[in-house]
Order: sequence, then structure tokens, then C-alpha cells
Amino acid sequence: MNENIHADRPTFVTHLECSLTGERYEADRLHGLSKAGRPLLVRYDLEALGQAVSRDAIAARPTDLWRWRELLPVRRTANIVSLGEIETPLVPIPLSGGPGAIVKDEGRLPTGSFKARGLVMAVAMARELGVTRIAMPTNGNAGAALAAYAARCGIETIVLCPEETPEVNVREIAAQGARVYRVNGQIDDCGAIVGRGAAEGLWFDFSTLKEPYRIEGKKTMGLELAAQFGWELPDAIFYPTGGGTGLIGMWKAFDELERLGWIGSKRPRMYAVQAAGCAPIVRAYEAGEEHAERWDNAATVAAGIRVPRAVGDFLILRAVRESGGRALAVGDPAILAAVDDAARRDGLLLCPEGGATLAAYRQAIVDGLVDPEERTVLFNCATGLKYPMPPATDTLDRHGAIDLASL
Amino acid sequence: MNENIHADRPTFVTHLECSLTGERYEADRLHGLSKAGRPLLVRYDLEALGQAVSRDAIAARPTDLWRWRELLPVRRTANIVSLGEIETPLVPIPLSGGPGAIVKDEGRLPTGSFKARGLVMAVAMARELGVTRIAMPTNGNAGAALAAYAARCGIETIVLCPEETPEVNVREIAAQGARVYRVNGQIDDCGAIVGRGAAEGLWFDFSTLKEPYRIEGKKTMGLELAAQFGWELPDAIFYPTGGGTGLIGMWKAFDELERLGWIGSKRPRMYAVQAAGCAPIVRAYEAGEEHAERWDNAATVAAGIRVPRAVGDFLILRAVRESGGRALAVGDPAILAAVDDAARRDGLLLCPEGGATLAAYRQAIVDGLVDPEERTVLFNCATGLKYPMPPATDTLDRHGAIDLASL
Ligand SMILES: Cc1ncc(COP(=O)(O)O)c(C=O)c1O
Ligand SMILES: Cc1ncc(COP(=O)(O)O)c(C=O)c1O
Repeated sequence: MNENIHADRPTFVTHLECSLTGERYEADRLHGLSKAGRPLLVRYDLEALGQAVSRDAIAARPTDLWRWRELLPVRRTANIVSLGEIETPLVPIPLSGGPGAIVKDEGRLPTGSFKARGLVMAVAMARELGVTRIAMPTNGNAGAALAAYAARCGIETIVLCPEETPEVNVREIAAQGARVYRVNGQIDDCGAIVGRGAAEGLWFDFSTLKEPYRIEGKKTMGLELAAQFGWELPDAIFYPTGGGTGLIGMWKAFDELERLGWIGSKRPRMYAVQAAGCAPIVRAYEAGEEHAERWDNAATVAAGIRVPRAVGDFLILRAVRESGGRALAVGDPAILAAVDDAARRDGLLLCPEGGATLAAYRQAIVDGLVDPEERTVLFNCATGLKYPMPPATDTLDRHGAIDLASL
Repeated sequence: MNENIHADRPTFVTHLECSLTGERYEADRLHGLSKAGRPLLVRYDLEALGQAVSRDAIAARPTDLWRWRELLPVRRTANIVSLGEIETPLVPIPLSGGPGAIVKDEGRLPTGSFKARGLVMAVAMARELGVTRIAMPTNGNAGAALAAYAARCGIETIVLCPEETPEVNVREIAAQGARVYRVNGQIDDCGAIVGRGAAEGLWFDFSTLKEPYRIEGKKTMGLELAAQFGWELPDAIFYPTGGGTGLIGMWKAFDELERLGWIGSKRPRMYAVQAAGCAPIVRAYEAGEEHAERWDNAATVAAGIRVPRAVGDFLILRAVRESGGRALAVGDPAILAAVDDAARRDGLLLCPEGGATLAAYRQAIVDGLVDPEERTVLFNCATGLKYPMPPATDTLDRHGAIDLASL
């Protein structure tokens, strides 16, 4: 029914490239990290691409992630496993955010989070390359997206979560047919176990940035923003940063769009938002470092950004600095207050990570980093419905006398 | 940014009409039920509408609910309070449903349910007509949508839920700034309290079908299906039926589209799905009645369709019969099995009401009512993430010896 998914479209991948050394790797082969132990980036023949399709042609297609087919790596249409990857809406939050604050509401994607973007792509590529068994460390949402897409095409999945992963995530992963285990540790501890199994040939390792295609899926956030803002990017972007795939992906998208001549050279200032209880990128940013050391004893209510160590640290830091943005930390109380305020005043229920972007944005306005009138996008990366809300327990007795005027 | 919401567009409402007697009521006035105690339907000057806009013009607009502006009642653009009402995707479920089974995934709408469609419209109209205080009985999702939209424009809301309303619903309603109470009874008991307060002039009554505009919002499900299926409707629709607004709304949409000449006379067979523990419409259907009596001791896991009495009963029954469909009941075990199966095999987490449509569909195939190859739409009216899932509790000790091959 949707031509984006059902029609064949040309692809333009030429090769992959080490993000640290630039070393070249062949396309259409199964890859993990580069020899230098760093993420691989997919490269396209953008000249041929620009001749094959225009931005207006893409804008005229049905509005979903697959309208960007030519800018994505999947070669064979039949490998696309879709659960309906709609373009996520932009929702202004004038009351809790201010005149320039616009939430990109990623909770509308399949499995309720933006992890669907990365995983729909990575699973399609895994299929294309013959993978049948996948393992992944996750703070929750990525595992849920993996489980759903893999279930749909019969790929076996093993998912490892830190002890403190939200209960709803563990349950949805299991409900969607994956084998899921909690581990007494953080996400990098889970990642170490996954890595051991991969080394033994038990499964393919789907850790953030350790396979090259999740980032291509996340890139679509940047592509969508360009189209939604009329091919003129917003002034600033606040992104809740764990592994940083989304931030890195958007930065890559903007670069590709400019090379295509579809946008100009203007870039949003990129703000990487972390929790005060787990802020390795902020620490490295402030110290002027290129790489970030592990953050010990990580703790925050925003599970998605409880990532003590990011393999793409230098890519995050580079994008933040090149853009003229910053890395910012916010405390859990500010996160929870932001979630509460956005729901109560703008009717929008954010996830804690989305609350972190709002909290950081408000602080950035106070600190003069952002002007309230600037068009600023705050990423709400998952539906707030996944997360615990305070109880509300008044009960009325219908047989009793109810003072209606007091309700 | 979205021209559908920001540009002024002509409206074509001529009047309202009693759904039972045809009596005429003035537009642009505040109305509840008709004098006959039945729902009012909004009528349009379809001839003028057809001259002002074509289906192709609508198809070329951004893909959301507001692309249908001319077919909707809101006159003043400024009264639209939006949280991003995207067009919901169609997701095939070949493994748990079969080759013809397509889920319309309404859980992607604001507040995670299709109630957003009705409430975004009703709140805009309440604003247009000067309402400042609203009360509503709800099984949960409608209250959540009301709270969100009303919060956004400063309308005060009082929400009453039956005792057995899912906890998440009560919490999200409170989080979004409404005053919410549980009542020891069913939704019609809550409705009686709301009705008393309305009679005393304490608030405006927003019960299902007791104000005329929710149905216009729900109508957009029918409009979207027409556009998504290329202006040729599917063969059958399974709709989880409580108050029945959606079913009535779609039926109205199809009628208006045919009068406009945008679709032909072919109609889907409409299947009204209820739970075996609360099936007043099914009982009336089978008895050949035009109205449905109250169902006592209603009980089902699917809270959204736990509606013992529907003020639009005759409209539901009429649409079902005219369409050549049926009213069908399914037990809770079949509902839960369907939810489990769709998640595990197709990676799609349904709400219990969505599970009910899948369960009824499977039974209908067994009973020869539906051919597996027919294009059949199953409504999943809310995100499955709102509802309890079975726990999943295996834990691994990262300091111990993990038998990786056994994971
Ligand atoms: C809701 C949410 N927000 C943000 C993040 C961080 O995303 P990234 O790994 O791209 O930095 C995650 C990752 O788990 C998440 O689930
Ligand atoms: C998830 C869900 N499905 C179905 C229904 C029934 O909708 P209707 O009142 O249009 O029959 C509801 C209503 O609360 C609901 O929340």
C-alpha cells in the first residue's frame, strides 16, 4: 500500500569508512567496529544520488522514514521489515518551554521510541547480510525495538539489560519474543557479555555503533527536521545523549544534505544533554578532551542516558563543538519537574530523557546560551506512557452524597 | 509550520440534526443531546464543499487529521489545539492474523489512543463556543485525551472513572492537570454524576455522543482509510465497540465521501466487537432489536469496551446491519491470547481492545464470515504499552560464570 516500502528504489552506498582513521571497508559485507575499534560510517555516491532524485520528489512521497530510501543503505526492498515508521510530529510547548520550544515527539514510533529508527534499519541490513541470531545490551528501548523487528522476520534475539532498566522495557522485550536477562551492572557490563558471545561466534553484536546501520536509521531524524522546517534547519537542537547515535546521525544527515545542495551551510547548535549522575560527555567537553572517560557509579532516573562510556564519544564531542553548541548536565529533580510541568501545562507527557532536554533548555535560556525566540527542537525520544507516574487516588462513593461543586 | 493548522480554510457546517428524529438544530450554539435524548449529527453543505476542494488537493496536504479541515466543524483556526494528530499507519500482521489482516495502529496518536481524534475536535469546539469547565465519565483513554487538550488551552476538567480503570490512565489524567476521581461503579454510573453536575450548571457534559463533535473527530478514521486505500474502502472493518463513536463516525464519513463523489457505493462490512463479559450490542444484534438494554455486572480486561449502555446503540446496530457485518463477542482468554500472539510473532503490541478485534477476526475466519484474503482492517485503538504485561525476571550475575551458549 505504501510505495516507499513496496517499490524498488536505487541505492547509492559505495563503501564504509572508519570514523577515526578514514580507512575504507567494503559494502555488502558484515562488519562490526573498524580495526581501530571505532564506528564505521556508511558512504554514498551523493553525486549520482542527486541526479536520481530531488528533494521535491522525496517531499511528494508518503510521509514516513522510507521516503528517504535513496539516502539509506537497504538494497533489497524485500528485506524491509516495517511496523509503520511514521514521520514524527513537531509539538510546540509554549507554556512549559516558551515561544521557541518545539518538541519532536519520537514516542509515536513503533515500540514507543526513536530506537525504532535505528533498529528497523539494522535489522533490514542484518537480514540482507544473512544474520540469524542477534544479541544486544540495552537500557531498554533499543532492546524493545530490536525484539519487535526481529520477531517479525524470525531472527532470534538475546537482550541483556542493566539491573535498573525500567520494568516496562523488560516486559515488552519478553512479550515481543526475545530472550531477555537483567545483569547486575551497567550497560557496558552487559555489552562486555554480548561481546564475549560474539567473539565465540554465538551471535552477532548489535551494540550501539558497533554495527554500522543503526546510525543510518537515526540519521532520518535530521532528514525529517530538514524537510519539516522547509529545508532550513532550526537554530538549536537539544538531544538526550547516551551512546549519542542520534546526535551523530543527525550531524551526518546535515552534511549529506548540504553536499546534495538540499540545505545550505547553516547548522543548528547541537546541545548534548546528560544527567548530572552520568555525564561523561559533559566532563570531557568541559575539560576540552576529545575522548570521554568512563563515568563510575552512574545513576539517574533517565535510564536511556545512563551510559557510562560511549564508543562514539569523539564523534559526539566533535559535532557539539563544530556546531557551536555545548554538552550540558541536569539533575534528576530538574528532569522530573520538567516532565511534570510539560504534562500539566502543555498536555504533553515526556519521557525522563525528554524531560532532561526541557530542563537543560530552560537552564540554557537562563544562562543566555539560547534566545527564547530561537527555533529550538527538544527531542522527546520515547513516549512518557512507558514511565512511572505519581499515583492519583481520590475515590467517590456513588451511593453517598457527593458535593459536586467541590470536585 | 503545518499549513493544515495555521492556514484559514473555509468550513461548510450548515446545521445539526437529531440522529433519531431528524429534527434540525442551529450550528454555532452549545448543544448536548437532542430533545429526544439522542446524539446530534453535524451536517455540511457537501455541494459547496465539493466545489471548494478536491480529494486530490487534500491528498497533497501534510498527512494529518487537519488535512480534512473542510469536512470538520471548527470554524476558527485559532481554536485548534494540536498535539500532533498524525495519520495513523496501517501495519499488516501476516503471522498472527493472516494475509489480509491489517492493523490500524491508533496508539500513535497524542496520549496514546484514538480518543485524541474525538477530543481534539470537541475541545476546539468547546473553545469556539466559550466553554471553560468540562466534566467527563471515562474508562480511561478519553479522559487522558481530554485532560491533555484542555490543559493546553486552560479549560478546567473534572474526570470520573470507574473503579476498575487501568491505573496508568488515572495517573496520566492527573499528570495532565485534570482533577480525576474513581467511582465505585461502571462508566454509566460516572455518567450519571456528570449529568447531575451539568444540570446544576457546574460544568459542560463531555460524555460520549452527548456533545456533537467527538464523532466528527472520530470520523477522520474513515476519511483516512479511504485515502490510505486509494479511495476504495477495505472489505471489512473490526472495531472494538464501547460507546461506538468510532464505528458511527466512520459510517458517517463513508456516507459523506460518497455524496462528494470521492468514493463509490462499496462499503466495508462493519464488525462491532465486544467482550463476552459486556456485550449489550451483540445481544441486541442477535435478538434483532434496534436498541440495546443495559448489560449488568459488566466485566472484561478490555476496559475501553466495558460500556454497559450506549446512547448511540441504534446507530451502531444500524451501521452494522446496513453494512452486512455483525456484532461479535470474544472472551477475555481469547483477547489475551491474541495480544500475546501479535506481539510474539508480528512484533506488534496491541491494547486489549485491539486484541479483541484480532480474536474476533480469527473466529470470523473459522466461522466463514471473512475470507483470509479479504483486506480487513483491525482497529488497535491504544498503544499496548499502557497495559500490564507479564513479568520477565531472569537475572544474570556478571561476576559469575555465565553459560553464554545457553542464553
Ligand atoms: C528515551 C531515550 N532517550 C535517549 C536515549 C539515548 O540515545 P542515544 O544512544 O542515541 O544517545 C535513549 C537510549 O536508550 C533512550 O531510550
Ligand atoms: C482502547 C479503546 N478501544 C476501544 C474503545 C471503545 O471506543 P468507542 O467508545 O468508540 O466504542 C475505547 C474507549 O474507551 C478504548 O479506550
